[in-house]
Amino acid sequence: MIKTEIGTTTMDEITVRGRSLAGELIGQVDFVDMILIASLGRPCQGAEKEVINTILVTVCDHGLTPSALAARLTYMGAPEAPQAAVAAGLLGAGSVFLGAMQNAAEMLQEAAAGLPADATDEQITERAREFVTARRAARAPLYGLGHNIHLNGDPRIPALRGVAERTGTLDVHWKLLLAMDEVSGTIYSRRLPANTAGAVGAMVLSLGLPLHMARGLALIGRCAGLLGHIIEEQEHPIGQELWDLVLRQDDRNQVPGKFA
Amino acid sequence: MIKTEIGTTTMDEITVRGRSLAGELIGQVDFVDMILIASLGRPCQGAEKEVINTILVTVCDHGLTPSALAARLTYMGAPEAPQAAVAAGLLGAGSVFLGAMQNAAEMLQEAAAGLPADATDEQITERAREFVTARRAARAPLYGLGHNIHLNGDPRIPALRGVAERTGTLDVHWKLLLAMDEVSGTIYSRRLPANTAGAVGAMVLSLGLPLHMARGLALIGRCAGLLGHIIEEQEHPIGQELWDLVLRQDDRNQVPGKFA
Amino acid sequence: MIKTEIGTTTMDEITVRGRSLAGELIGQVDFVDMILIASLGRPCQGAEKEVINTILVTVCDHGLTPSALAARLTYMGAPEAPQAAVAAGLLGAGSVFLGAMQNAAEMLQEAAAGLPADATDEQITERAREFVTARRAARAPLYGLGHNIHLNGDPRIPALRGVAERTGTLDVHWKLLLAMDEVSGTIYSRRLPANTAGAVGAMVLSLGLPLHMARGLALIGRCAGLLGHIIEEQEHPIGQELWDLVLRQDDRNQVPGKFA
Amino acid sequence: MIKTEIGTTTMDEITVRGRSLAGELIGQVDFVDMILIASLGRPCQGAEKEVINTILVTVCDHGLTPSALAARLTYMGAPEAPQAAVAAGLLGAGSVFLGAMQNAAEMLQEAAAGLPADATDEQITERAREFVTARRAARAPLYGLGHNIHLNGDPRIPALRGVAERTGTLDVHWKLLLAMDEVSGTIYSRRLPANTAGAVGAMVLSLGLPLHMARGLALIGRCAGLLGHIIEEQEHPIGQELWDLVLRQDDRNQVPGKFA
Repeated sequence: MIKTEIGTTTMDEITVRGRSLAGELIGQVDFVDMILIASLGRPCQGAEKEVINTILVTVCDHGLTPSALAARLTYMGAPEAPQAAVAAGLLGAGSVFLGAMQNAAEMLQEAAAGLPADATDEQITERAREFVTARRAARAPLYGLGHNIHLNGDPRIPALRGVAERTGTLDVHWKLLLAMDEVSGTIYSRRLPANTAGAVGAMVLSLGLPLHMARGLALIGRCAGLLGHIIEEQEHPIGQELWDLVLRQDDRNQVPGKFA
Repeated sequence: MIKTEIGTTTMDEITVRGRSLAGELIGQVDFVDMILIASLGRPCQGAEKEVINTILVTVCDHGLTPSALAARLTYMGAPEAPQAAVAAGLLGAGSVFLGAMQNAAEMLQEAAAGLPADATDEQITERAREFVTARRAARAPLYGLGHNIHLNGDPRIPALRGVAERTGTLDVHWKLLLAMDEVSGTIYSRRLPANTAGAVGAMVLSLGLPLHMARGLALIGRCAGLLGHIIEEQEHPIGQELWDLVLRQDDRNQVPGKFA
Repeated sequence: MIKTEIGTTTMDEITVRGRSLAGELIGQVDFVDMILIASLGRPCQGAEKEVINTILVTVCDHGLTPSALAARLTYMGAPEAPQAAVAAGLLGAGSVFLGAMQNAAEMLQEAAAGLPADATDEQITERAREFVTARRAARAPLYGLGHNIHLNGDPRIPALRGVAERTGTLDVHWKLLLAMDEVSGTIYSRRLPANTAGAVGAMVLSLGLPLHMARGLALIGRCAGLLGHIIEEQEHPIGQELWDLVLRQDDRNQVPGKFA
Repeated sequence: MIKTEIGTTTMDEITVRGRSLAGELIGQVDFVDMILIASLGRPCQGAEKEVINTILVTVCDHGLTPSALAARLTYMGAPEAPQAAVAAGLLGAGSVFLGAMQNAAEMLQEAAAGLPADATDEQITERAREFVTARRAARAPLYGLGHNIHLNGDPRIPALRGVAERTGTLDVHWKLLLAMDEVSGTIYSRRLPANTAGAVGAMVLSLGLPLHMARGLALIGRCAGLLGHIIEEQEHPIGQELWDLVLRQDDRNQVPGKFA
C-alpha cells in the first residue's frame, strides 16, 4: 500500500508522525527534536540532542571546500534558482568527502560485530589491528581515518571526543575508531589519524540511530553552510574570478583580466 | 580576491567566521546558532532562535509531497547515493512549492516599501487592498496566499501567528500578509487565505534576515524531512508500487501486478 | 597542473580537443561525433556511430518511469528552473535503474577477463554458468539480467542484438550476456532474461569505450526524454493529479478533488 | 487523467509516441530524430536535423567552465555516483550561463511580435533599436548579447550564421539578434556583440520548436561535454589541485602542498 507513517493531510489538519503539526509541533519542539520526530517518530532522548547538535555544527562548513565551490559556481549561472546551487553543493556528499561518515559508520559497525559491548581496551585494540590489517590486505579503503590537510590529526577530534565523553556516548565504535588511529602507524607507512567522518560515523552508531542518519545529518548541516556561501556569493561574488584563475593556469587560454 | 569570510583552514585549525571550530563552536553552540554564525557571523539574538526553530519545524515535512516523492523515486534507482535523492527532493523548491517563501518575502517587502514601521491597521489594510488589486490587474501571482488543499485556511497559520505574537515579531510584513488574506475575497472570486509560504516569508522579514534565508531555511528543514522519507523508503519501499499505480492509470499500459 | 585537454579559450577562439570549435566543428560534425570528440578527442570510427545512436535511442524514454516522474514533480514546484527538473530526473540513474548499464559493463568485463577474444560458444557458456553460480553464491546482484515487467524477455533485446550483428560488434561481452540469460533458469528459480542495461553495457565494451560511457550515454539519451516530459508537463500537467492520486491511497488523507 | 503521450509499456512492447521502440526506432532512427520524436512525436524535417546537430555541437563544451568545474568537484567527493556529477554540472544552466538561450529565445520572440515575417531590414533595425532602448531604460537584461571573454565578437557566431544561411533558416529572429548587435554600440557605452546563447535562441525560434527546446538542447549537448570531463577527471584528476589553488589565494589558509 502506498502510504507513509511520516505525515498525513486533510483540509483542516496536517500530522507528522501522528502529531498535529499546528497543535503539537510548531512553536513547541525545536528543530533537532523535529529531525528525530520525522525519522523515528519521537523527539530526542538522553544525550541525543547534544550529540546531534554537535554533529550538525561540525559538518556545517569550513570555507571554500569542493562542496561550497560547486554551489557557488552553480549559483553564478542560475542565481534565480538558489535551491539548485544548494543541491549541487550536496551532490558531492559521497564516499570521499562530506558523505564518508556513512561509509565510516558501516565500516565501524562491521568491525564491531562480534565484539561485546563491554569489550576491554585490549580486545578493542586487537580487533582494530586485525581489522585494519585485513582492510589493507584487501586493498579496501579505510573510511574515517587519514586526512590530506590535517596530517598530524584532525583538530575536531578532541572536541568531538570531549562531547562523547561528557555525554557518556564514547562507546565501542568510538573506541574502535581511536584504536584504529593508534595502530595505523604500525600497519601503514604513516599514521592515519581519526577524522571527522569517522567520529560522526561513530557518534551515529553510539546513539543507535539508523545508518542513513550519518550522511543525512551531514546533508542537513551542510545545507546551512551552503546557504551562507550563497548569501556571500550574492554580496561578494568570487565565481567569475575563480573561473578566470582556473583558465590562467594553462597558457593556451588567454582571457581578459577577470574577463573584463 | 578569491576568499571567503566563512571559513579558513590550516593544518591545525579550522575557523568559521573567525571562531575556532574545535575550540569555540563544537559542543558549545547549537545548530540554530550555527546557521546564523555561518551566514551572518554571529549566533542568534532575541527572538531569532525561537522563530528560526519554528520555521524549520514548519517546513520539515508533511507526508507524500511532490518533494518527498521525487526523493523516493530517485532513491529507488540509486540507493547507493542517498545524497542524490535528497538533492532531487530539494530541487523542486521553486516559486510554486517549498521555495515560494522567497517569492512571498520579496513580494511582502515590495508591498511594505513606503509604509512606516508603525503604520496603523487602516494604513495596512489600505495598502494591502491597493497592492492585491494591482497584482491582480497585472496578472501577477500573489505569493503566500491561497492553498489548493486548505481551502478554508492553512491550519499552520494560527500556530505561526501565535509564535510571532509571543515573540513580539508580528511586524508590518506579517500584518500586510494577514490584511491581504482579509481583503482578498473582495478582489478575487474567493478568499485567498494566507499560507505557510507567506508566513515564513513574513517571519524572515520580521527578523531582518537576508532574503535568501527564506528559501534557504526551507531547504534546511526539508532536508530533515527527506531524510525521514529515505529511511522509510529503505525499510518500507513504496516506489515500485507507485510506479505500478501510475502505469495502471492508462489502459495502454499492461504490467504485471506490482511488476511481479 | 590544472588544465584540461578538452577545451581552451582565447578572446578570438575556442578549441575542443585541439580543433577550432567555429572553424572545424560547428556545422561540420554531427552530435554523435562530437560526443566522442569531447571524450576521446576523435570522431566516430567504424561501427561506433551506428551503435552509439542505437544506445541513445534505446535509453531515451519509455513513458512514466521513476525518472520522468521525478522530473515532472520537480518541474511542478520550480517551472522557472527546467534544468533542475532534468537534473532531478537524471539523479536516479544509479545501480538499479537507468544507470545499471555501468554496473553491467563492469560485471561483464570481470566475467570476460581470462576468456580469449575468440572463445568458443562452449567456453562462453561454461564461463557464464560458472560466473552466475558464483554471483548467486556470493549473493551479489546480477546486473543486466532480469526485468520486473518484461518477464518473458526484454523486447528491446532482439533489436539491439540485430544492430550488434549487423555492425559486427556482437563480441565476447555480448555473447556472455546472452549465455548468462540462457543458463540463468538452471541456476535461479526462474530465467533472468538479458535486459537493456546488460545490452548497453555489452555494446559499450564491444566498442572498447571507457566504462563511464555506459551510464554517460544513458544520461545523454535520457536528457532528451526528460525534455519531452517537461514540454508535455507544461502543456498537459499531471503533477497535481499524481499528488492527489497518491494521497487518496491512504484514508487518513482527505483532500479536495484534484485539490480543487 | 494521469497519462503521457510519450510512452507506454506492456509485458511485450514499449512504444514511444505510438511507435514500437523495438520494431520501429532502435537501429532505424538516429538520436537527433529521437529527440524530436520524444518531444514532438515526429522525426526531423527539412533543416531541423542539421540545425539541431549544430546547436548540440556548439553547446557541448569549451573547457573548464563553471559547469565543468562544478561537475568535477562533485565527482571528487562521490566518484561512485557519476550521474550526480553530471547533474551538478547541469544545474547552473540558468539565466546567466548555459541556460540563457531560453531567456534569449523568449526575448527575441517578444521583440519579433508585431513584425511581419517578411519585415524589411529597415523595419528590423528600427525594431531592434526601439527594443534595446526600451530594455535599457527598464534596466532589463539583454539576453543573447555581450560576452565577458569574446569582447570583439563571439567567434562561434559567423559559423552559426553560416549554418542558418546554408539551411535557409536565417529568419526574423536571427535578423533581430544581428540588428541588436549592430545598434547596441549606439545605445550602450560599448557594442554588445551577439553571443551563442542569442544565436541558439534564434535557431530554436527559426525552426518553430517549443521554447523549452532552447535550454533543453543545451542540457543534452552539455551532458556530453560533462561526460568528457568526468572521464578526464578519473584519469587525470584536477579537483584536489583546484581546491589547493583556491585555498592558497587567502593567506589565512595554510595547507600542505596539493594537500600532501
